[in-house]
Amino acid sequence: MTISDDQRREIAEARKNIHLSSRAYSSDLEQMLHEPIPVLDHGFVRVVDYMGNDEAIVQAARVSYGSGTKAISTDRGLIRYLMRHWHSTPFEMCEIKLHVKLPVFVARQWVRHRTANVNEYSARYSILENEFYIPRPEHVAMQSQQNNQGRGDLIDDPAAVIQEIEHQSAIAYESYDWLIGDPTAEDGGLGVARELGRMVLPTNIYTQWYWKVDLHNLFHFLRLRADPHAQLEIRAYAEAICQIVKAWVPLAYEAFEDYRLNAVSFSAQEMLFLRKMLPKEVVEQFWCDPNSLLSNPEHEANNLLSAREAREFLAKLRGSD
Amino acid sequence: MTISDDQRREIAEARKNIHLSSRAYSSDLEQMLHEPIPVLDHGFVRVVDYMGNDEAIVQAARVSYGSGTKAISTDRGLIRYLMRHWHSTPFEMCEIKLHVKLPVFVARQWVRHRTANVNEYSARYSILENEFYIPRPEHVAMQSQQNNQGRGDLIDDPAAVIQEIEHQSAIAYESYDWLIGDPTAEDGGLGVARELGRMVLPTNIYTQWYWKVDLHNLFHFLRLRADPHAQLEIRAYAEAICQIVKAWVPLAYEAFEDYRLNAVSFSAQEMLFLRKMLPKEVVEQFWCDPNSLLSNPEHEANNLLSAREAREFLAKLRGSD
Amino acid sequence: MTISDDQRREIAEARKNIHLSSRAYSSDLEQMLHEPIPVLDHGFVRVVDYMGNDEAIVQAARVSYGSGTKAISTDRGLIRYLMRHWHSTPFEMCEIKLHVKLPVFVARQWVRHRTANVNEYSARYSILENEFYIPRPEHVAMQSQQNNQGRGDLIDDPAAVIQEIEHQSAIAYESYDWLIGDPTAEDGGLGVARELGRMVLPTNIYTQWYWKVDLHNLFHFLRLRADPHAQLEIRAYAEAICQIVKAWVPLAYEAFEDYRLNAVSFSAQEMLFLRKMLPKEVVEQFWCDPNSLLSNPEHEANNLLSAREAREFLAKLRGSD
Amino acid sequence: MTISDDQRREIAEARKNIHLSSRAYSSDLEQMLHEPIPVLDHGFVRVVDYMGNDEAIVQAARVSYGSGTKAISTDRGLIRYLMRHWHSTPFEMCEIKLHVKLPVFVARQWVRHRTANVNEYSARYSILENEFYIPRPEHVAMQSQQNNQGRGDLIDDPAAVIQEIEHQSAIAYESYDWLIGDPTAEDGGLGVARELGRMVLPTNIYTQWYWKVDLHNLFHFLRLRADPHAQLEIRAYAEAICQIVKAWVPLAYEAFEDYRLNAVSFSAQEMLFLRKMLPKEVVEQFWCDPNSLLSNPEHEANNLLSAREAREFLAKLRGSD
Repeated sequence: MTISDDQRREIAEARKNIHLSSRAYSSDLEQMLHEPIPVLDHGFVRVVDYMGNDEAIVQAARVSYGSGTKAISTDRGLIRYLMRHWHSTPFEMCEIKLHVKLPVFVARQWVRHRTANVNEYSARYSILENEFYIPRPEHVAMQSQQNNQGRGDLIDDPAAVIQEIEHQSAIAYESYDWLIGDPTAEDGGLGVARELGRMVLPTNIYTQWYWKVDLHNLFHFLRLRADPHAQLEIRAYAEAICQIVKAWVPLAYEAFEDYRLNAVSFSAQEMLFLRKMLPKEVVEQFWCDPNSLLSNPEHEANNLLSAREAREFLAKLRGSD
Repeated sequence: MTISDDQRREIAEARKNIHLSSRAYSSDLEQMLHEPIPVLDHGFVRVVDYMGNDEAIVQAARVSYGSGTKAISTDRGLIRYLMRHWHSTPFEMCEIKLHVKLPVFVARQWVRHRTANVNEYSARYSILENEFYIPRPEHVAMQSQQNNQGRGDLIDDPAAVIQEIEHQSAIAYESYDWLIGDPTAEDGGLGVARELGRMVLPTNIYTQWYWKVDLHNLFHFLRLRADPHAQLEIRAYAEAICQIVKAWVPLAYEAFEDYRLNAVSFSAQEMLFLRKMLPKEVVEQFWCDPNSLLSNPEHEANNLLSAREAREFLAKLRGSD
Repeated sequence: MTISDDQRREIAEARKNIHLSSRAYSSDLEQMLHEPIPVLDHGFVRVVDYMGNDEAIVQAARVSYGSGTKAISTDRGLIRYLMRHWHSTPFEMCEIKLHVKLPVFVARQWVRHRTANVNEYSARYSILENEFYIPRPEHVAMQSQQNNQGRGDLIDDPAAVIQEIEHQSAIAYESYDWLIGDPTAEDGGLGVARELGRMVLPTNIYTQWYWKVDLHNLFHFLRLRADPHAQLEIRAYAEAICQIVKAWVPLAYEAFEDYRLNAVSFSAQEMLFLRKMLPKEVVEQFWCDPNSLLSNPEHEANNLLSAREAREFLAKLRGSD
Repeated sequence: MTISDDQRREIAEARKNIHLSSRAYSSDLEQMLHEPIPVLDHGFVRVVDYMGNDEAIVQAARVSYGSGTKAISTDRGLIRYLMRHWHSTPFEMCEIKLHVKLPVFVARQWVRHRTANVNEYSARYSILENEFYIPRPEHVAMQSQQNNQGRGDLIDDPAAVIQEIEHQSAIAYESYDWLIGDPTAEDGGLGVARELGRMVLPTNIYTQWYWKVDLHNLFHFLRLRADPHAQLEIRAYAEAICQIVKAWVPLAYEAFEDYRLNAVSFSAQEMLFLRKMLPKEVVEQFWCDPNSLLSNPEHEANNLLSAREAREFLAKLRGSD
């Protein structure tokens, strides 16, 4: 991770600049505030600010659903209900602002998530630093044979690849430096406009941005980018952010893991087969005695399925016939 | 369905005003163009314009994935692949513009789908017609006892309810008419500004709008609003739009039904139970011989599961252990 | 202003629940936090939470423009520069969450601003209170004769209008109450589902929501809704929010007033006439001696125009010829 | 402009594939449909599809404003009124889909306009062509001394710069080719995954995408990107698109030029000075006789200012005092 001295100073100041506030508060996230979490070789993610917490989600839901939500007694139960039934607006009531340092090719994938706010470092205004992403040996892989977009087996001689990428990065930066260099200086450059000179730089160069997003859209981002199909490099960022979100809104994050990240969706056709494969008696037995699913004290202790979810589960397996 | 004479004339003209065009074309939707489809008592939906068709989705995907998509031989296969794997951007390349007449309380639910363009009739500029939604007897239901937001059993005496709603609508309109009526006319009104007078009108009055949306966001709308949990009145519109979309992009609509509307999602916990309920031998048997799923000529003929999907299906059941 | 006992309790608790935080802080807004500001007869606006302050805008801009922004020495100068040149993304880095109680007809205009998050009270889940907006005598106006959408002269006998609106509201609520009333109770109602019964209620009934928006989009909302062409009732909310924003981000709000709210735009044609009307000598005189605009100590003291703005101003008047 | 053979075939087919349709039609745009317009050295813009035309804007406005809009007699007058008064929703009712080939550094600026749909060529799936943007000698400029983000004077020896950029592009592509090359082939490469190998490519390499946007957001894009402050390379695309929009919706485009692109905005402070500089008698003279502005037959013939606009113009100059 590479942080400039200016940034180090700014972070130290931000951490000292504390006030009493009656805003919604997340004690675990407050601990992480401002501090960069290293990602890849020179990158980082750090939380600059946040709005809301688990209770803010509950509070927003209670505005919408009024006394109707009182039936669900606990905050955890309500948050899980909202997640399960795609009531997404209460999650939009939380917001987070991150400072991210990342390679340009990762930024190009990231920015496709449009419902977010971005302020990126401008290479028209300022000079890019000589910092490039170089993959580690254990991440240098062949093109996958089954999958058109991914990596397959590891390469035999990763050092050759790494050396080549390092070499290309170095000569590109040298060229950039010469193109935009001050022509009046000793060993001066050509004085070309920065907006022109930067075009010789490859996309493994690092950029930075502030990125602000609401929790609902962040979950959507994480579902796609923490997925094994996402490119390894953006996944590294998604995983760091997962840890942040877990500290910030532990109940919402748990629900996200259970009902999105680790949920499995079956198509109409797959459900036909599934229902064929599953002995009817097994389902009916559970159906007739839904408590059987719950009577196991282990389930209850582990909060595996609420009575309501057990009914929903069996209804899905039975289908509407 | 109530269409004004002006609208009838406009529709007739639009249907006569034809040109040769090399734009993407959907012959089935072209037949439906401009014609209102009745919904509820006075409402309608009609297609004013559209952009794209099933091939436009395929074309956009091929720009993204380049030669990589050639592996999937058919348009249908590619569209199903995109839908299954949440590659949503190619669906955004189709757009539809609808003219809808609907009660205000339905409009209030509808407009929560924000990624769409709307031009609504303005009751500040113009006078609202005396048209109110009155539910049919078979739709007049009690508050549900299990579900805080829905309807339960039918009511014993729907006529009393209907009569009450009709009565309230009539006196509210009379009041509106008097408030905004021209004070200089015989039997004149008070001449109050329309933006003030309209506030006495109940939300079962009809309004109209043009609504334009891309296919991806329309599918999202339909998934939520054609769902049994949606209020019956907005569901009536969603179902009419389903028929429109089916005519417009039959392959995409079929994929939407299979992978969204009729798909079933199981949480991480439910998958634990599902894997317990499902005898391992059954899954393994399919796994060891994936063709068994396909060898049934009936499956193939019915396009139930492609070889690729069969593998994905079994992998989901086995889990990553 | 009507606040329920539950809400009063919730507010009191929120104000007591304070923590030390190193997040960006706005001391003036912190004072206003949670407290409702009355709007119209029963409505209010209150700040539930906020993210960012004037310095957060500056900080985001410095990430984008890097060392390039150091040239503009003060935070105020930079914020004004950003506003003047439509660099809108740094303003998106601030976010505010409001709890608003407002008539339904106002909510219908408000929700047309789509880039915001909303959680509205649901009349499917919960019972609406008997609270209706009744205009004050001094706001009861005739339809404007020049303007199709607005109000004109005050009405001679506002009491008649007010009485009519009160009467309609009362009988509509009575009807609602009877429709959804519990049939098993004494003087019971018909027990109709709430989602059906609410349709007889007029749009001057009050609803509530949580509304969360970034500062850039909030400024856009305020520009349109604090404008004299906006309906008086939504303007009342916009004006209350202007006071909130002024407390929150005083520098950004001042720039918003100067470069948006009170700015004047002239079309290409108007500029032709303007340049004709304005004696060339006058402009040239300023041009040749730009300091004449600034040499007046009154201007400087009042921060009327910076040297940079004086140059921009004269260049606009001269045109590109 | 470089078009692949596949694309040439696809375009030829699209142009032959014509149908009779009763959709809104723009004859001038229909002529341009599918045909690429060259931009920069290898880039292009081509219209793949469109929805709506000038009349569609008028039609949408009439739905909103109802009979109130009849007062403005002509389509042109109404469209200009809508543009002048920021009634933006009717413009959102038109949509266009473009196929664009552009350098990656231009794509990075372009994609910041978030309210649009994009399908970009994926360098994870497919191999990028050996095509790089090389600036022409007359566009190779020094860093501006006044402006932190732009170009200043032309460079003395552009050939050196061009040669350097060409050289860097060539060796980067060679490196890419070797990294991802098939290791089993003669002169084979290392077989690295495409998603890894592409990171050595500089941002002047060309990419492609389908980009779909509504007319309101397209105008916003054009206002920022056809502006002299935009980087020359993206401006070249914006200018090509201006020609497309002019052919598509000539009335809306004219209004956009007059009220946005060539309009001038004055801050509250500038208006103070402007009103001081402008002899009161001059304004009053116009005010007392607004026809003087119009009585000149040249103005009327040239459609410079309508009577309504003349009144608005003078009111702006007088201020509200």
